[in-house]
Amino acid sequence: MSAPLLEQFIEALRVLPGVGQKTAQRMAYHLLDRDRRGGARLAEVMADALMKIGQCKQCRDFSEGEICGLCASASRDRQQLCVVESPVDRLAIEQATGYRGLYFVLHGKLSPLDGIGPRELGLDQLGERLAQGGVEEMIIATNPTVEGEATAHYVAQLARQHGVRPSRLAHGVPLGGELEYVDRGTLSHAFGSRSEIP
Amino acid sequence: MSAPLLEQFIEALRVLPGVGQKTAQRMAYHLLDRDRRGGARLAEVMADALMKIGQCKQCRDFSEGEICGLCASASRDRQQLCVVESPVDRLAIEQATGYRGLYFVLHGKLSPLDGIGPRELGLDQLGERLAQGGVEEMIIATNPTVEGEATAHYVAQLARQHGVRPSRLAHGVPLGGELEYVDRGTLSHAFGSRSEIP
Ligand SMILES: [Zn+2]
Ligand SMILES: [Zn+2]
Repeated sequence: MSAPLLEQFIEALRVLPGVGQKTAQRMAYHLLDRDRRGGARLAEVMADALMKIGQCKQCRDFSEGEICGLCASASRDRQQLCVVESPVDRLAIEQATGYRGLYFVLHGKLSPLDGIGPRELGLDQLGERLAQGGVEEMIIATNPTVEGEATAHYVAQLARQHGVRPSRLAHGVPLGGELEYVDRGTLSHAFGSRSEIP
Repeated sequence: MSAPLLEQFIEALRVLPGVGQKTAQRMAYHLLDRDRRGGARLAEVMADALMKIGQCKQCRDFSEGEICGLCASASRDRQQLCVVESPVDRLAIEQATGYRGLYFVLHGKLSPLDGIGPRELGLDQLGERLAQGGVEEMIIATNPTVEGEATAHYVAQLARQHGVRPSRLAHGVPLGGELEYVDRGTLSHAFGSRSEIP
Protein backbone atom coordinates (compact mmCIF):
# COMPACT_ATOMS: atom_id res chain seq x y z
CA MET A 1 0.00 0.00 0.00
CA SER A 2 3.00 2.34 0.33
CA ALA A 3 4.10 4.56 -2.54
CA PRO A 4 5.96 2.61 -5.22
CA LEU A 5 8.30 5.54 -5.96
CA LEU A 6 9.41 5.49 -2.31
CA GLU A 7 10.11 1.77 -2.57
CA GLN A 8 12.08 2.33 -5.77
CA PHE A 9 14.07 5.06 -4.04
CA ILE A 10 14.93 2.81 -1.08
CA GLU A 11 15.81 -0.05 -3.41
CA ALA A 12 18.01 2.20 -5.58
CA LEU A 13 19.99 3.40 -2.54
CA ARG A 14 21.17 -0.16 -1.98
CA VAL A 15 23.69 0.15 -4.81
CA LEU A 16 25.80 2.06 -2.28
CA PRO A 17 28.40 -0.19 -0.60
CA GLY A 18 27.49 -1.22 2.94
CA VAL A 19 23.89 -0.01 2.61
CA GLY A 20 21.23 -2.63 3.40
CA GLN A 21 17.45 -2.33 3.54
CA LYS A 22 17.28 -0.62 6.96
CA THR A 23 19.98 1.93 6.20
CA ALA A 24 18.51 2.68 2.77
CA GLN A 25 15.14 3.33 4.40
CA ARG A 26 16.67 5.63 6.97
CA MET A 27 18.54 7.53 4.23
CA ALA A 28 15.45 7.98 2.05
CA TYR A 29 13.33 9.15 5.00
CA HIS A 30 16.05 11.51 6.16
CA LEU A 31 16.31 13.19 2.76
CA LEU A 32 12.53 13.38 2.30
CA ASP A 33 11.97 14.74 5.80
CA ARG A 34 14.95 16.94 6.36
CA ASP A 35 17.14 17.61 3.38
CA ARG A 36 15.34 17.65 0.04
CA ARG A 37 17.63 20.36 -1.24
CA GLY A 38 20.83 18.44 -0.34
CA GLY A 39 19.34 15.28 -1.84
CA ALA A 40 18.44 17.04 -5.09
CA ARG A 41 21.96 18.42 -5.28
CA LEU A 42 23.40 14.94 -4.67
CA ALA A 43 21.23 13.47 -7.44
CA GLU A 44 22.42 16.14 -9.85
CA VAL A 45 26.12 15.90 -9.01
CA MET A 46 25.98 12.09 -9.02
CA ALA A 47 24.46 11.95 -12.52
CA ASP A 48 27.01 14.48 -13.71
CA ALA A 49 30.00 12.74 -12.12
CA LEU A 50 29.05 9.30 -13.43
CA MET A 51 28.71 10.71 -16.92
CA LYS A 52 31.80 12.93 -17.03
CA ILE A 53 34.45 11.30 -14.88
CA GLY A 54 36.55 8.86 -16.86
CA GLN A 55 40.08 7.54 -16.42
CA CYS A 56 43.31 9.41 -17.06
CA LYS A 57 44.94 7.95 -20.19
CA GLN A 58 48.33 7.84 -18.49
CA CYS A 59 47.71 6.67 -14.92
CA ARG A 60 44.11 5.36 -15.05
CA ASP A 61 43.16 7.45 -12.00
CA PHE A 62 39.73 9.09 -12.17
CA SER A 63 39.86 12.25 -14.26
CA GLU A 64 37.50 14.61 -16.02
CA GLY A 65 40.05 15.35 -18.71
CA GLU A 66 42.10 12.97 -20.85
CA ILE A 67 45.13 13.49 -18.62
CA CYS A 68 44.73 14.08 -14.87
CA GLY A 69 46.20 17.05 -13.06
CA LEU A 70 48.87 15.01 -11.37
CA CYS A 71 50.16 13.44 -14.60
CA ALA A 72 50.09 16.83 -16.30
CA SER A 73 51.99 18.53 -13.50
CA ALA A 74 55.52 19.66 -14.38
CA SER A 75 56.68 19.35 -10.79
CA ARG A 76 56.46 15.56 -10.44
CA ASP A 77 59.43 13.21 -10.77
CA ARG A 78 58.91 11.08 -13.88
CA GLN A 79 61.54 8.53 -12.90
CA GLN A 80 59.40 7.04 -10.15
CA LEU A 81 56.12 5.24 -10.77
CA CYS A 82 53.98 3.99 -7.87
CA VAL A 83 51.48 1.23 -8.71
CA VAL A 84 48.35 1.10 -6.50
CA GLU A 85 45.18 -0.97 -6.53
CA SER A 86 42.74 1.92 -6.21
CA PRO A 87 42.40 5.70 -6.29
CA VAL A 88 41.89 5.65 -2.51
CA ASP A 89 45.35 4.14 -2.09
CA ARG A 90 46.85 6.84 -4.30
CA LEU A 91 45.16 9.47 -2.16
CA ALA A 92 46.41 7.87 1.06
CA ILE A 93 50.02 7.80 -0.16
CA GLU A 94 49.74 11.34 -1.49
CA GLN A 95 48.45 12.59 1.86
CA ALA A 96 50.76 10.59 4.14
CA THR A 97 54.10 10.65 2.36
CA GLY A 98 56.29 13.15 0.58
CA TYR A 99 56.26 11.09 -2.63
CA ARG A 100 56.73 13.31 -5.68
CA GLY A 101 56.67 10.73 -8.47
CA LEU A 102 53.80 9.52 -10.67
CA TYR A 103 51.20 6.78 -10.17
CA PHE A 104 49.51 3.97 -12.02
CA VAL A 105 46.09 2.82 -10.78
CA LEU A 106 45.11 -0.81 -11.41
CA HIS A 107 41.45 -0.47 -10.28
CA GLY A 108 41.60 -3.95 -8.81
CA LYS A 109 43.96 -6.89 -8.38
CA LEU A 110 44.56 -10.10 -10.29
CA SER A 111 41.68 -12.44 -9.58
CA PRO A 112 41.36 -15.10 -12.30
CA LEU A 113 38.24 -16.61 -10.73
CA ASP A 114 36.45 -13.26 -11.10
CA GLY A 115 37.73 -12.86 -14.65
CA ILE A 116 40.17 -10.10 -13.67
CA GLY A 117 43.43 -10.65 -15.50
CA PRO A 118 46.33 -8.43 -16.62
CA ARG A 119 44.20 -6.87 -19.37
CA GLU A 120 41.46 -5.72 -16.95
CA LEU A 121 44.11 -4.07 -14.75
CA GLY A 122 45.56 -2.14 -17.70
CA LEU A 123 48.88 -3.98 -17.51
CA ASP A 124 49.34 -3.91 -21.30
CA GLN A 125 49.05 -0.13 -21.01
CA LEU A 126 51.56 -0.16 -18.14
CA GLY A 127 53.94 -2.24 -20.28
CA GLU A 128 53.73 0.27 -23.13
CA ARG A 129 54.48 3.07 -20.75
CA LEU A 130 57.56 1.32 -19.39
CA ALA A 131 58.70 0.56 -22.95
CA GLN A 132 58.82 4.30 -23.66
CA GLY A 133 61.63 4.54 -21.09
CA GLY A 134 62.29 7.16 -18.45
CA VAL A 135 60.99 5.22 -15.45
CA GLU A 136 63.76 3.97 -13.15
CA GLU A 137 61.95 2.71 -10.07
CA MET A 138 58.54 1.12 -9.81
CA ILE A 139 57.17 1.25 -6.25
CA ILE A 140 54.57 -1.51 -5.97
CA ALA A 141 52.04 -0.55 -3.29
CA THR A 142 49.37 -3.23 -3.72
CA ASN A 143 47.68 -4.43 -0.54
CA PRO A 144 49.38 -7.21 1.45
CA THR A 145 46.63 -9.75 0.69
CA VAL A 146 47.09 -13.00 -1.23
CA GLU A 147 45.72 -11.45 -4.43
CA GLY A 148 47.58 -8.19 -3.85
CA GLU A 149 50.86 -10.11 -3.45
CA ALA A 150 50.22 -12.14 -6.63
CA THR A 151 49.56 -8.88 -8.46
CA ALA A 152 52.74 -7.35 -7.04
CA HIS A 153 54.70 -10.39 -8.22
CA TYR A 154 53.31 -10.08 -11.76
CA VAL A 155 53.87 -6.32 -11.93
CA ALA A 156 57.43 -6.69 -10.63
CA GLN A 157 58.20 -9.14 -13.46
CA LEU A 158 56.81 -6.65 -15.96
CA ALA A 159 59.09 -3.98 -14.50
CA ARG A 160 62.18 -6.21 -14.75
CA GLN A 161 61.36 -7.06 -18.37
CA HIS A 162 61.70 -3.37 -19.14
CA GLY A 163 64.83 -2.85 -17.07
CA VAL A 164 62.94 -1.01 -14.34
CA ARG A 165 63.85 -1.65 -10.68
CA PRO A 166 60.76 -2.83 -8.71
CA SER A 167 60.40 -2.06 -4.99
CA ARG A 168 57.68 -2.65 -2.41
CA LEU A 169 56.55 -1.00 0.81
CA ALA A 170 58.04 -2.35 4.04
CA HIS A 171 55.81 -4.63 6.11
CA GLY A 172 55.98 -4.94 9.88
CA VAL A 173 54.57 -3.88 13.21
CA PRO A 174 52.75 -0.54 12.73
CA LEU A 175 54.27 2.44 14.53
CA GLY A 176 52.55 2.81 17.88
CA GLY A 177 51.07 -0.66 17.50
CA GLU A 178 51.24 -3.15 20.34
CA LEU A 179 52.65 -6.58 19.55
CA GLU A 180 49.73 -8.16 21.37
CA TYR A 181 47.28 -6.79 18.83
CA VAL A 182 49.29 -7.30 15.65
CA ASP A 183 48.03 -10.21 13.53
CA ARG A 184 50.16 -13.36 13.49
CA GLY A 185 51.22 -13.09 9.85
CA THR A 186 52.51 -9.54 10.28
CA LEU A 187 54.28 -10.43 13.53
CA SER A 188 55.90 -13.48 11.98
CA HIS A 189 57.05 -11.41 8.99
CA ALA A 190 58.36 -8.63 11.24
CA PHE A 191 60.22 -11.15 13.36
CA GLY A 192 61.81 -12.80 10.34
CA SER A 193 62.79 -9.43 8.85
CA ARG A 194 64.31 -8.10 12.07
CA SER A 195 67.37 -5.89 11.68
CA GLU A 196 70.44 -5.63 13.83
CA ILE A 197 70.56 -2.72 16.23
CA PRO A 198 73.78 -0.89 15.38
CA MET B 1 45.15 18.34 -8.20
CA SER B 2 42.27 15.81 -8.22
CA ALA B 3 39.17 16.37 -10.30
CA PRO B 4 36.86 18.99 -8.77
CA LEU B 5 33.74 17.11 -9.93
CA LEU B 6 34.91 14.05 -7.98
CA GLU B 7 35.36 16.21 -4.89
CA GLN B 8 31.88 17.68 -5.36
CA PHE B 9 30.48 14.17 -5.69
CA ILE B 10 32.14 13.00 -2.46
CA GLU B 11 31.05 16.14 -0.64
CA ALA B 12 27.45 15.79 -1.89
CA LEU B 13 27.25 12.18 -0.63
CA ARG B 14 27.74 13.49 2.90
CA VAL B 15 24.12 14.67 3.06
CA LEU B 16 23.30 11.00 3.69
CA PRO B 17 22.92 10.25 7.42
CA GLY B 18 25.92 8.45 8.95
CA VAL B 19 28.13 9.11 5.93
CA GLY B 20 31.42 10.85 6.70
CA GLN B 21 34.34 11.75 4.43
CA LYS B 22 35.83 8.23 4.28
CA THR B 23 32.54 6.48 3.58
CA ALA B 24 31.55 9.07 0.98
CA GLN B 25 34.86 8.51 -0.78
CA ARG B 26 34.39 4.76 -0.76
CA MET B 27 30.85 5.14 -2.13
CA ALA B 28 31.89 7.47 -4.96
CA TYR B 29 34.80 5.23 -5.95
CA HIS B 30 32.63 2.13 -5.81
CA LEU B 31 30.03 3.64 -8.15
CA LEU B 32 32.63 5.03 -10.55
CA ASP B 33 34.60 1.78 -10.63
CA ARG B 34 31.92 -0.85 -10.44
CA ASP B 35 28.36 0.34 -10.79
CA ARG B 36 27.88 3.37 -13.01
CA ARG B 37 24.57 2.05 -14.23
CA GLY B 38 23.20 1.51 -10.69
CA GLY B 39 24.49 4.94 -9.68
CA ALA B 40 22.83 6.63 -12.65
CA ARG B 41 19.57 4.89 -11.80
CA LEU B 42 19.89 6.02 -8.17
CA ALA B 43 20.48 9.63 -9.25
CA GLU B 44 17.39 9.52 -11.46
CA VAL B 45 15.06 7.88 -8.93
CA MET B 46 16.35 10.15 -6.16
CA ALA B 47 15.63 13.33 -8.13
CA ASP B 48 12.21 11.97 -9.05
CA ALA B 49 11.31 10.87 -5.51
CA LEU B 50 12.39 14.15 -3.92
CA MET B 51 10.28 16.06 -6.42
CA LYS B 52 7.16 13.91 -6.42
CA ILE B 53 6.80 12.42 -2.95
CA GLY B 54 4.83 14.70 -0.67
CA GLN B 55 2.77 14.07 2.44
CA CYS B 56 -0.67 12.48 2.60
CA LYS B 57 -3.20 15.20 3.49
CA GLN B 58 -4.84 12.96 6.06
CA CYS B 59 -2.05 11.13 7.85
CA ARG B 60 1.08 13.07 6.81
CA ASP B 61 2.84 9.86 5.81
CA PHE B 62 4.89 10.05 2.61
CA SER B 63 2.67 9.75 -0.44
CA GLU B 64 2.79 10.41 -4.15
CA GLY B 65 -0.91 11.23 -4.26
CA GLU B 66 -2.94 13.63 -2.09
CA ILE B 67 -4.22 10.72 0.00
CA CYS B 68 -2.02 7.67 0.67
CA GLY B 69 -3.10 4.13 -0.11
CA LEU B 70 -3.59 3.24 3.53
CA CYS B 71 -5.88 6.20 4.26
CA ALA B 72 -7.82 5.53 1.07
CA SER B 73 -8.27 1.84 1.85
CA ALA B 74 -11.86 0.80 2.65
CA SER B 75 -10.67 -2.07 4.82
CA ARG B 76 -9.13 -0.06 7.65
CA ASP B 77 -10.88 0.67 10.93
CA ARG B 78 -11.53 4.42 11.12
CA GLN B 79 -12.25 4.38 14.86
CA GLN B 80 -8.61 3.81 15.77
CA LEU B 81 -5.84 6.29 15.08
CA CYS B 82 -2.22 5.49 15.87
CA VAL B 83 0.14 8.47 16.26
CA VAL B 84 3.80 7.84 15.41
CA GLU B 85 6.89 10.02 15.20
CA SER B 86 8.08 8.82 11.79
CA PRO B 87 7.11 6.79 8.73
CA VAL B 88 9.61 4.10 9.84
CA ASP B 89 7.63 3.65 13.04
CA ARG B 90 4.40 3.29 11.08
CA LEU B 91 6.07 0.64 8.94
CA ALA B 92 7.38 -1.24 11.98
CA ILE B 93 3.91 -1.36 13.59
CA GLU B 94 2.30 -2.33 10.30
CA GLN B 95 4.76 -5.20 9.85
CA ALA B 96 4.84 -6.46 13.44
CA THR B 97 1.25 -6.15 14.61
CA GLY B 98 -2.22 -6.93 13.31
CA TYR B 99 -3.31 -3.30 13.68
CA ARG B 100 -6.05 -2.42 11.18
CA GLY B 101 -6.72 1.22 12.08
CA LEU B 102 -5.33 4.43 10.62
CA TYR B 103 -2.19 6.43 11.43
CA PHE B 104 -1.02 9.97 11.92
CA VAL B 105 2.68 10.73 11.33
CA LEU B 106 4.22 13.62 13.29
CA HIS B 107 7.56 13.66 11.42
CA GLY B 108 9.34 14.55 14.63
CA LYS B 109 8.66 15.22 18.29
CA LEU B 110 8.14 18.37 20.37
CA SER B 111 11.51 20.05 20.77
CA PRO B 112 11.09 23.75 21.61
CA LEU B 113 14.83 24.40 21.56
CA ASP B 114 14.98 23.25 17.93
CA GLY B 115 11.91 25.31 17.06
CA ILE B 116 9.71 22.24 16.71
CA GLY B 117 6.33 22.97 18.27
CA PRO B 118 2.78 21.63 17.82
CA ARG B 119 2.45 23.41 14.48
CA GLU B 120 5.54 21.76 12.97
CA LEU B 121 4.18 18.35 13.98
CA GLY B 122 0.84 19.01 12.28
CA LEU B 123 -1.04 18.94 15.58
CA ASP B 124 -3.50 21.62 14.40
CA GLN B 125 -4.31 19.30 11.51
CA LEU B 126 -4.67 16.38 13.96
CA GLY B 127 -7.04 18.51 16.07
CA GLU B 128 -9.23 19.29 13.05
CA ARG B 129 -9.36 15.62 12.22
CA LEU B 130 -10.46 14.67 15.74
CA ALA B 131 -13.08 17.47 15.65
CA GLN B 132 -14.72 15.77 12.67
CA GLY B 133 -15.57 12.87 14.97
CA GLY B 134 -15.44 9.15 14.28
CA VAL B 135 -12.18 8.39 16.10
CA GLU B 136 -12.70 6.56 19.40
CA GLU B 137 -9.22 5.52 20.45
CA MET B 138 -5.92 7.26 19.85
CA ILE B 139 -2.95 4.92 20.27
CA ILE B 140 0.07 7.08 21.00
CA ALA B 141 3.22 5.27 19.85
CA THR B 142 5.88 7.94 20.24
CA ASN B 143 9.31 6.77 21.35
CA PRO B 144 9.94 6.38 25.09
CA THR B 145 12.46 9.24 25.20
CA VAL B 146 12.05 12.45 27.20
CA GLU B 147 10.88 14.37 24.13
CA GLY B 148 8.73 11.47 22.93
CA GLU B 149 7.01 11.30 26.32
CA ALA B 150 6.41 15.07 26.35
CA THR B 151 4.90 14.77 22.87
CA ALA B 152 2.73 11.85 24.00
CA HIS B 153 1.50 13.92 26.94
CA TYR B 154 0.57 16.82 24.66
CA VAL B 155 -1.15 14.60 22.09
CA ALA B 156 -3.08 12.76 24.81
CA GLN B 157 -4.47 16.09 26.06
CA LEU B 158 -5.53 16.95 22.52
CA ALA B 159 -7.35 13.61 22.30
CA ARG B 160 -9.16 14.16 25.59
CA GLN B 161 -10.24 17.65 24.48
CA HIS B 162 -12.08 15.96 21.61
CA GLY B 163 -13.54 13.19 23.72
CA VAL B 164 -11.16 10.61 22.26
CA ARG B 165 -9.66 7.95 24.58
CA PRO B 166 -5.81 8.07 24.44
CA SER B 167 -3.74 4.92 25.00
CA ARG B 168 -0.03 4.13 24.84
CA LEU B 169 2.09 1.08 24.16
CA ALA B 170 3.10 -1.02 27.17
CA HIS B 171 6.65 -0.57 28.44
CA GLY B 172 8.65 -3.30 30.11
CA VAL B 173 11.23 -6.01 29.76
CA PRO B 174 11.42 -7.02 26.06
CA LEU B 175 10.34 -10.58 25.28
CA GLY B 176 13.43 -12.78 25.31
CA GLY B 177 15.39 -9.99 27.02
CA GLU B 178 17.54 -10.76 30.04
CA LEU B 179 17.00 -8.60 33.12
CA GLU B 180 20.72 -8.13 33.41
CA TYR B 181 20.86 -6.27 30.11
CA VAL B 182 17.69 -4.19 30.42
CA ASP B 183 18.37 -0.53 31.19
CA ARG B 184 17.59 0.68 34.71
CA GLY B 185 14.70 2.94 33.73
CA THR B 186 12.89 0.15 31.90
CA LEU B 187 13.54 -2.33 34.70
CA SER B 188 12.29 0.09 37.32
CA HIS B 189 9.16 0.78 35.26
CA ALA B 190 8.54 -2.92 34.64
CA PHE B 191 8.96 -3.64 38.33
CA GLY B 192 6.52 -0.90 39.32
CA SER B 193 3.99 -2.05 36.72
CA ARG B 194 4.16 -5.72 37.70
CA SER B 195 0.89 -7.66 37.50
CA GLU B 196 -0.40 -10.38 39.74
CA ILE B 197 -0.01 -13.94 38.48
CA PRO B 198 -3.53 -15.36 38.45
ZN1 LIG C 1 46.93 10.61 -14.57
ZN1 LIG D 1 -2.50 8.79 4.62
